Amino acid sequence: MLRVDNLATLSDFYEFTMLDGFISTGRQDTIGYYDIYFRSVPDNGGYVIAAGLESIIEYMKTLTFEKEDIDYFKKLGVFSSEFIDYITNFKFECDVWAVPEGTPVFPGEPLVIIRGPVAQAQLMETMILLCINHQSLIATKAHRIVRAADGRSVMEFGSRRAQGYSAAVLGARAAYIAGCSSTSCTIADREYSIPIAGTMAHSWVSLFPTEYEAFSAYAKRYPNNCVLLVDTYNVLKSGIPNAIKVFDEVLKPQGIRPLGIRIDSGDITYLTKKSRAMLDKAGYEDCKIVASNSLDEYIIQDTIMQGAKIDMFGVGERLITSKSDPVLGGVYKLVGVEENGGIIPKIKLSENVSKITTPCFKQVYRLYSNENDMAIADVVTLHDEIIDDTKTYEIFDPEYTWKRKKITDFYVRPLLVRIFDKGQCVYDMPDVKQIKKYCEGQTITIWEEVKRFENPHKYYVDLSQKLWDIKQELLAKYAND
Amino acid sequence: MLRVDNLATLSDFYEFTMLDGFISTGRQDTIGYYDIYFRSVPDNGGYVIAAGLESIIEYMKTLTFEKEDIDYFKKLGVFSSEFIDYITNFKFECDVWAVPEGTPVFPGEPLVIIRGPVAQAQLMETMILLCINHQSLIATKAHRIVRAADGRSVMEFGSRRAQGYSAAVLGARAAYIAGCSSTSCTIADREYSIPIAGTMAHSWVSLFPTEYEAFSAYAKRYPNNCVLLVDTYNVLKSGIPNAIKVFDEVLKPQGIRPLGIRIDSGDITYLTKKSRAMLDKAGYEDCKIVASNSLDEYIIQDTIMQGAKIDMFGVGERLITSKSDPVLGGVYKLVGVEENGGIIPKIKLSENVSKITTPCFKQVYRLYSNENDMAIADVVTLHDEIIDDTKTYEIFDPEYTWKRKKITDFYVRPLLVRIFDKGQCVYDMPDVKQIKKYCEGQTITIWEEVKRFENPHKYYVDLSQKLWDIKQELLAKYAND
Repeated sequence: MLRVDNLATLSDFYEFTMLDGFISTGRQDTIGYYDIYFRSVPDNGGYVIAAGLESIIEYMKTLTFEKEDIDYFKKLGVFSSEFIDYITNFKFECDVWAVPEGTPVFPGEPLVIIRGPVAQAQLMETMILLCINHQSLIATKAHRIVRAADGRSVMEFGSRRAQGYSAAVLGARAAYIAGCSSTSCTIADREYSIPIAGTMAHSWVSLFPTEYEAFSAYAKRYPNNCVLLVDTYNVLKSGIPNAIKVFDEVLKPQGIRPLGIRIDSGDITYLTKKSRAMLDKAGYEDCKIVASNSLDEYIIQDTIMQGAKIDMFGVGERLITSKSDPVLGGVYKLVGVEENGGIIPKIKLSENVSKITTPCFKQVYRLYSNENDMAIADVVTLHDEIIDDTKTYEIFDPEYTWKRKKITDFYVRPLLVRIFDKGQCVYDMPDVKQIKKYCEGQTITIWEEVKRFENPHKYYVDLSQKLWDIKQELLAKYAND
Repeated sequence: MLRVDNLATLSDFYEFTMLDGFISTGRQDTIGYYDIYFRSVPDNGGYVIAAGLESIIEYMKTLTFEKEDIDYFKKLGVFSSEFIDYITNFKFECDVWAVPEGTPVFPGEPLVIIRGPVAQAQLMETMILLCINHQSLIATKAHRIVRAADGRSVMEFGSRRAQGYSAAVLGARAAYIAGCSSTSCTIADREYSIPIAGTMAHSWVSLFPTEYEAFSAYAKRYPNNCVLLVDTYNVLKSGIPNAIKVFDEVLKPQGIRPLGIRIDSGDITYLTKKSRAMLDKAGYEDCKIVASNSLDEYIIQDTIMQGAKIDMFGVGERLITSKSDPVLGGVYKLVGVEENGGIIPKIKLSENVSKITTPCFKQVYRLYSNENDMAIADVVTLHDEIIDDTKTYEIFDPEYTWKRKKITDFYVRPLLVRIFDKGQCVYDMPDVKQIKKYCEGQTITIWEEVKRFENPHKYYVDLSQKLWDIKQELLAKYAND
């Protein structure tokens, strides 16, 4: 079975052929700067919730090549002995900056910056992208779904449809960060302290001679956590009447109130309205109704609009895979190289204009209004630039440069924080509850117009004048070549 | 970092609350039968390629609860001491049957059958579904993409966009089984012996002062594996001319032919036609052209139809996530319970007719024509039923029962083979190359009409008369309740 405590070779093979190439051309110690960023938001949305940093930190902290890796590379017979020496003595010594998990982020701004010997920085490309792309994708989808639920709890139920083991576990973590109340994935609690939820499956009900006996047995075993699944046979004719009978006969004599019922099939809106009325009539107004069955942000919005009586949603495959758009396309690009004490900016051109990169070692500043603490714009700058928030600052669209806006009465916050200093982790990783709270606080600063599901307002991500000038200079140089 | 050699708690929490419930009602040793099957094919396709069995076998072979799991459950404070004893002394003793990996399979037929104490069989639900759903999904998508490429190689390039670590590695394995020629994911070779491929990234080219120097350095280091990425600046003005120059100056003097060039952006059809002409004119007719950049079965079909000059495809995110439809909805249903030496069939009804289950302990037979070895239909039967292929056999549609067909001149093959016998693995797992070959041989037996991408012909999956009768009896019983 795959061990995940040694993921040094979870890397595209070309990272290793390039590493050997760097060595053969004496470039292995050249210091490069790499940006990780995405170009567009899944589901045509307006924002992404950053996630995956904790996985990256764990990966970097433990990044070494073990005997089985070295033997593997030797066996392939294509690598030089210098390459084998290099990975045998590999010691991580990069500098890393990143946007904290839970931050709302936007296309074109770096979420992670790596500075280090190209031989090291290059080979981490695959894992860094994999972690950021996957976990930010799921956090983003979960945030949309939680917003659609409009204050009602959303439980993550998707493990069985997740794309592999780590998708289930790290997906549950990302969903929690972005606002889900709990997960069904037990190991996500054991490993990451994500609150756990779950009661019974249809097979529990099927196993007993009758639905009533199944409910009764469950209520006797879990009187204080009694949520009954009522749709194995017929919700309104059998499920709800049997549930009420068990609440009356098993729980009431003990003075215990039932927690809830769950419906997992059929017309959720109709069935929850009818069920609510039956439960209320029987004196169980406080019994919660949980709905599951192929839900997402749009179906949740619809059921609420149609007056469905739902207190909690269980969301499975459409969250854990981000089914409607299962890819966040983050990329990893060389943006600069150190030479003679300076940084030479690097650019990648492309026939597709959207694939042109922005060069240089950067910082990202978020500008907030002093009046209402709402985010106004992000400005990508050179790393050592300062935005003075005591003065008016003019932002401009990097493409339509006549679109300009003077910002006054604002404060500024750098988004990228230091994670590793020459291979040493200097970041104090917050726990998941802190990240969840931070995410909640930060997404409130983003205007509703940017967060709506369809045709969101495009949040400003501009370049500083200095950075814009350098990019134009490089573009002009290659266009004239 | 998550360890994946202990996945006993990668299970929905309700599996454990039910397990405790089974113990509290004295039902833990009741023998249950569970079917794993799916109801519909992703992408509205006509077939699924079964995968994931090797992962399930590894999981079952190692399924025990370790100290950290037991401590975790104790800490939760909701489980009985009998439950803690049960998992502490857990010893896997189920019987398992499954369809071998690489088999084309269809909606409604069991891919895996579990027979065992309900306390054991129930808690494996999440992992079994996760493995089968994910890996069959990716194998199915890969098979479509490989068919679209019509004999050209398809390389799996998706790790950086995979949904987590295991999605990258096990996705690469599933893609290979289904026909891909190689993967970029190094650890998939180390762990599963999937052939590896990869040369250079844009960052290799950017790192050097000029594209020519980057190409030249690579050709010198890897003269025998020289594939140059030609789209960092401008494919036709710079990339191809520099590649030809390097082929002439570095490889030709050594008498070595270049392997290929790769194009990863722009209009692939136009650029490959022009590139082909330039390479041919320079005497490199044998230099392969590799295309990548958001490809899938439809884009590949289009580029070929439009006369693109492509020898190999590199396919990333749209394969590794099955982007257009990223979920295979396999389910795990109780279909029978042993009582007094017999098997009581179990059914789950539903307001959604498609969610009604088929009861009983089963076998699946595939009927092949003696004339052309093509698959005619699958028949789901009681486990001990025999289909006598020396006589005429009548199949009928389980819904529209007047649709009947008499089959003569056929032979029959049971699809479900024994994997575990009372907890002992009795299956000799084939290696990935054997599975790939088996898959190729089996998919040839499925008519093209069933395999086409749009509006495929629906392959027959019928029930035997005996099984159909039992199902109708149970349906009538509950409908009259």
